[in-house]
Amino acid sequence: MSVTIHFAASRDDWENYAPHLRRALAEAGLDAALSPELGDPAAVDYIVYAPHEGLSDFTPFVRCKAVLSLWAGVERIAPNPTLTQPLVRMVDPGMTESMVEYVVGHVLRHHLGMDAHILGQDGVWRNRVRPPIARERNVAMLGLGVLGSSAARALAALNFPVMGWSRSARTIPGIDCRSGEDGLRAVLARAEIVVLLMPLTAETRDLLNAERLALLPKGAVIINPGRGPLVDDEALLAALEAGRIGHATLDVFRTEPLPPEHPFWAHPRVTVTPHIAADTRAVTATRVIAENIRRAEAGEPMANLVDRGRGY
Amino acid sequence: MSVTIHFAASRDDWENYAPHLRRALAEAGLDAALSPELGDPAAVDYIVYAPHEGLSDFTPFVRCKAVLSLWAGVERIAPNPTLTQPLVRMVDPGMTESMVEYVVGHVLRHHLGMDAHILGQDGVWRNRVRPPIARERNVAMLGLGVLGSSAARALAALNFPVMGWSRSARTIPGIDCRSGEDGLRAVLARAEIVVLLMPLTAETRDLLNAERLALLPKGAVIINPGRGPLVDDEALLAALEAGRIGHATLDVFRTEPLPPEHPFWAHPRVTVTPHIAADTRAVTATRVIAENIRRAEAGEPMANLVDRGRGY
Repeated sequence: MSVTIHFAASRDDWENYAPHLRRALAEAGLDAALSPELGDPAAVDYIVYAPHEGLSDFTPFVRCKAVLSLWAGVERIAPNPTLTQPLVRMVDPGMTESMVEYVVGHVLRHHLGMDAHILGQDGVWRNRVRPPIARERNVAMLGLGVLGSSAARALAALNFPVMGWSRSARTIPGIDCRSGEDGLRAVLARAEIVVLLMPLTAETRDLLNAERLALLPKGAVIINPGRGPLVDDEALLAALEAGRIGHATLDVFRTEPLPPEHPFWAHPRVTVTPHIAADTRAVTATRVIAENIRRAEAGEPMANLVDRGRGY
Repeated sequence: MSVTIHFAASRDDWENYAPHLRRALAEAGLDAALSPELGDPAAVDYIVYAPHEGLSDFTPFVRCKAVLSLWAGVERIAPNPTLTQPLVRMVDPGMTESMVEYVVGHVLRHHLGMDAHILGQDGVWRNRVRPPIARERNVAMLGLGVLGSSAARALAALNFPVMGWSRSARTIPGIDCRSGEDGLRAVLARAEIVVLLMPLTAETRDLLNAERLALLPKGAVIINPGRGPLVDDEALLAALEAGRIGHATLDVFRTEPLPPEHPFWAHPRVTVTPHIAADTRAVTATRVIAENIRRAEAGEPMANLVDRGRGY
């Protein structure tokens, strides 16, 4: 099967992905013409896409059968009114593993109170305060897609009682799953550690606002490796100042890179990580793309199609 | 069944354990006279023991059927020549969980390079360096008893390739188990993160000496929540100074509390935690003790008897 693929992403992405993508396409039995240069848009069968300075009008791609995102988050491309072609978001097993490691690592960091030891090597032997064990520590996972449910399962395997919340009702063995506004309030009321792994949509923007932050137990910890605008930054800073929120570990921000003057950097109870929790891994992600193109060419349904109404 | 139990440990231990132990003994159907005060040694059926200023001569306990340690480590009592009674070490499910959480947490901390973010909130967005995912990070577990094998399994469940080493050959699904001196050398040669969870015996003292530290890949991390003397402190400091060892996170020491002037406290690439990785949990440990006494009274073999020749 011969297909023309336009690689529409940054130059760095091209250098990172091209050799792996060529190999994955060949292994999938596809005879692919792959290029980052755009010739005749009407000749393009598939677009591999990541946000960059460039393509924003999808109208000329009249033959294009799908736009395949390199990113898991598609909030920047999904609302594009010129995009009438099917949109596929990235679900990359390497990225999922990386996200699970970040979430489990930072939950354990806060659970065990590691920062006190990492920051406070002062020669004083303070061994009287013992943390509870994991089965005594309630964790909430907001978002139960592939990333959220994988992280929730890994935390439950370490004995954390995990409550999960998602837009539509889900059932995951070992996770206390809730949905709806009442479900969200119930989850937040018990959560000592809250992890945000939701897509960014009109409905999830500012999900953790002042009112919902106030539902959390005093001293609760927020971990956000999802999307920056899920949290109302001003409300979070106010809750940290008031001592109601114990700590926030944030990997994603409304503006990235996070500007050096942003108060998150200097706040003693905020940890900024520079959007490193999980990224698409070229080796595994290109296999996912090649498999989806193979499916489309074989007349099979593609995996991880975005529901444009929902936005993810 | 009526039994007389002498509680031979510190006053703090008595206050912590007594209510739980009374309840656990009653739940096990035992009619127990339990006291921290020693009346007639010849009337004592069982001794619940932790190191303290007090009991060191076990000769007068002529009727005593077993000494049940509150601690997992028995290196201080096992060599006592007056102790002819059976010795039982503590295997407490609460302690095991706590240890697994510490080990998984600190392995992930080093794997993810968390300290750079916790210590370095300087406003600079450094997102070009991505850590490998867990399946690309070799971890070694030295010691495959209940604690070591539990921690090894939890790490393997997070996709870390785990090599295990123990004195006698073991087989654990998903763990590459080795034994013997050749096995130890093979494990150390590949270990990017080494966890020590062995009992302290004449054979394991100074296990990580200068020669064996030199086998590790450059930049390897040591995590020791086992016993302090498993590591040769001077050799470790020299290897840290030389940059051959990347970091050491130590929970146990030759002298505890670790003296304030000890160089470990001030070393930028050593994290001291004050023997908090795992401790016996009164609720779960007292059930283990009561069950062992019930077994002994019913003529069944006790669990976790110490092999006095081996020392654990």
